[in-house]
Amino acid sequence: MSTIASRTRTQVAIVGGGPAGLLLSHLLHLTGIDSVVLDNRTAHTIETTHRAGILERDSVRLLVDAGVDRVLRDGHRHEGISLRFGGVSHRIDFEDLAGASCWLYPQTDVFVDLHRARTAAGADLRYGISDTEVTDVVDAPRVRHTGADGHRHEITADLVIGADGSRSICRTLVSGATQYFREYPYAWFGVLVEAPRSAPELIYTRSPQGFALISQRTASIQRMYFQCDPTENPRDWSDDRIWNELQTRLAGDDDFRLLEGPVLERAVLPFRSFVQTPMRHGRLLLAGDAAHTVPPTGAKGLNLALADARLLADAIEHALVKNDATALEHYTTRALARVWKAQHFSYWMTTMLHRAEDTSEFDELRQLGELDSLVTSRAGATYLAEGYTGWPTR
Amino acid sequence: MSTIASRTRTQVAIVGGGPAGLLLSHLLHLTGIDSVVLDNRTAHTIETTHRAGILERDSVRLLVDAGVDRVLRDGHRHEGISLRFGGVSHRIDFEDLAGASCWLYPQTDVFVDLHRARTAAGADLRYGISDTEVTDVVDAPRVRHTGADGHRHEITADLVIGADGSRSICRTLVSGATQYFREYPYAWFGVLVEAPRSAPELIYTRSPQGFALISQRTASIQRMYFQCDPTENPRDWSDDRIWNELQTRLAGDDDFRLLEGPVLERAVLPFRSFVQTPMRHGRLLLAGDAAHTVPPTGAKGLNLALADARLLADAIEHALVKNDATALEHYTTRALARVWKAQHFSYWMTTMLHRAEDTSEFDELRQLGELDSLVTSRAGATYLAEGYTGWPTR
Repeated sequence: MSTIASRTRTQVAIVGGGPAGLLLSHLLHLTGIDSVVLDNRTAHTIETTHRAGILERDSVRLLVDAGVDRVLRDGHRHEGISLRFGGVSHRIDFEDLAGASCWLYPQTDVFVDLHRARTAAGADLRYGISDTEVTDVVDAPRVRHTGADGHRHEITADLVIGADGSRSICRTLVSGATQYFREYPYAWFGVLVEAPRSAPELIYTRSPQGFALISQRTASIQRMYFQCDPTENPRDWSDDRIWNELQTRLAGDDDFRLLEGPVLERAVLPFRSFVQTPMRHGRLLLAGDAAHTVPPTGAKGLNLALADARLLADAIEHALVKNDATALEHYTTRALARVWKAQHFSYWMTTMLHRAEDTSEFDELRQLGELDSLVTSRAGATYLAEGYTGWPTR
Repeated sequence: MSTIASRTRTQVAIVGGGPAGLLLSHLLHLTGIDSVVLDNRTAHTIETTHRAGILERDSVRLLVDAGVDRVLRDGHRHEGISLRFGGVSHRIDFEDLAGASCWLYPQTDVFVDLHRARTAAGADLRYGISDTEVTDVVDAPRVRHTGADGHRHEITADLVIGADGSRSICRTLVSGATQYFREYPYAWFGVLVEAPRSAPELIYTRSPQGFALISQRTASIQRMYFQCDPTENPRDWSDDRIWNELQTRLAGDDDFRLLEGPVLERAVLPFRSFVQTPMRHGRLLLAGDAAHTVPPTGAKGLNLALADARLLADAIEHALVKNDATALEHYTTRALARVWKAQHFSYWMTTMLHRAEDTSEFDELRQLGELDSLVTSRAGATYLAEGYTGWPTR
């Protein structure tokens, strides 16, 4: 083992510098709690990796209340979505139904904002590190890593947070944990395209050929997805083939027109559900994708990660400032209540709109029966609107 | 071929004298249209075969408006149900949420009432017949059968209705029809017991051991069900074993107590979904189970049959009295819109509350996440209440 070039003492060591880790660090800072944030990736890599783009009402509230409010200027408030099936779009009016909106604001911008806020406050942020080792999580957590300088560094902390994403190393330190999985028989083909907006809000489409989602980024850059086989190779898909597929799925009897342009990026996005419990082991606590993954339909992933950060900030403040040790004990239960609702919501949106290879004709018609029930019932549409804009934090 | 002992001319020959067939005959009578009703079973057999027991709001309205109103005196108005999971009951208040109730009133009583009304009006009802043959449905429908007298009789009609249940012979006469099926990996074990009421309303229970349903009949006779393997043999189940199973599934942390008594009847009820389209071929039209079957969860079967009868009465009046042939053409579309919503509702209630052999732990916890979402959302509970009490007839 190499020499330790530096030893840092902090209250909370946060492994993972994505939105969950940075938000937690920021919220802790606001209550006077010190933290160090570490990530194997560089900030540039995180900034340029396209991810989710929809923030729930309370995710925005949380950011704005914490002084991170660019979303209000540069984000786009969406007061609804369209459910498109049978060749016709049906608007779900979130404001009217649930008194709430969501915001189109890419995860990369959330990262940029939080990174800027933490940097401005002089936080200890360590990106582009390697060989992270987390030890002694039960009694006296210690995190060692090789810095961008090539030297080995050590951090000791009262608590360590695993906010290190779906390939979490911290997760493996929760001994005796139970993991729950669900596989889906499809993936999403995601594209970033240079084209004008085809619609002001997201369009969730169920077609005989499968699911498609029309989303937006800017006036000239759009994000779109269509359900595909997990084994598809993005290189097999020319611009023409991609547009043909999207046009077929969006085809209909109304005046909706999908506007085309060059495809800038293309990728196949995996699709799975995962939950690990408990989310705490001794002085280690997990947040976001490290503890749970949802399928992308319904845009819950980022919002769950931010909700975890909020719960954790609250629990840590109780534990470290108010000396209330039980706060940490309740974290798993509090977090998982929301996670399982979100797992169901994501499953529901997914199964209602996707088509599996082995979907029977009966189930296709039942699916249309459900969509018909939903859009003709104010209560049904409200139930969806509530889930989409997010359950109140409590 | 034997000699024809009698030839009867009527406007509508109705094959199947259960609730759908009798209600249609009654509704037609009220608009001055003649019909003959035939059934292989005796009226006694139908009267004594236990079936469904829940009438939607509009089913009751339909019966009462047609002068068949004993349900208002002898039925029990239920203003809600309980969803029981995690050992606690959650009431879904139909009146508060959806401004509607349903009624506990056994299908056998619906039959008795309609049979009495039709008999009082001097209707031509032929029960206990055999060898029914339906021919010439495209041009000039003819129904031949062997009467209780052993002789062969013939009925000619403008229209023939197949309301002859899940083993329909009329269904097979719709040439070029498409059939949709869905199998479920379980059945219901249904019992009739002599015991006091354990609860005033139905209790739909999700337990780690599977689904159970507590229903009522009278002050001293109750109806209960629990999910079982389709291959179970009722004879393998002693009273003790049945009560043990029910008690285990209803066990909980509240003061609910399941009251026991002798088991009077026990049977394994199959579970499947089926839809045939179109529901019309020439001058033959199908109603109820002849065209569609739903799983029992959610109690939609009888209600769909009565809704079909209402739609048919309306279409037949337009066709025969108002000479509007298009009315018959629209019947399939009008009926199936409701049927597919009901198929979804039944599927939803079923999958939310049952447990299959291969249900993963992930899906069990997701199921609890859904139930939690539903009972903590007024909109979600309302959506369920609307579906349960029935979508408005339109």
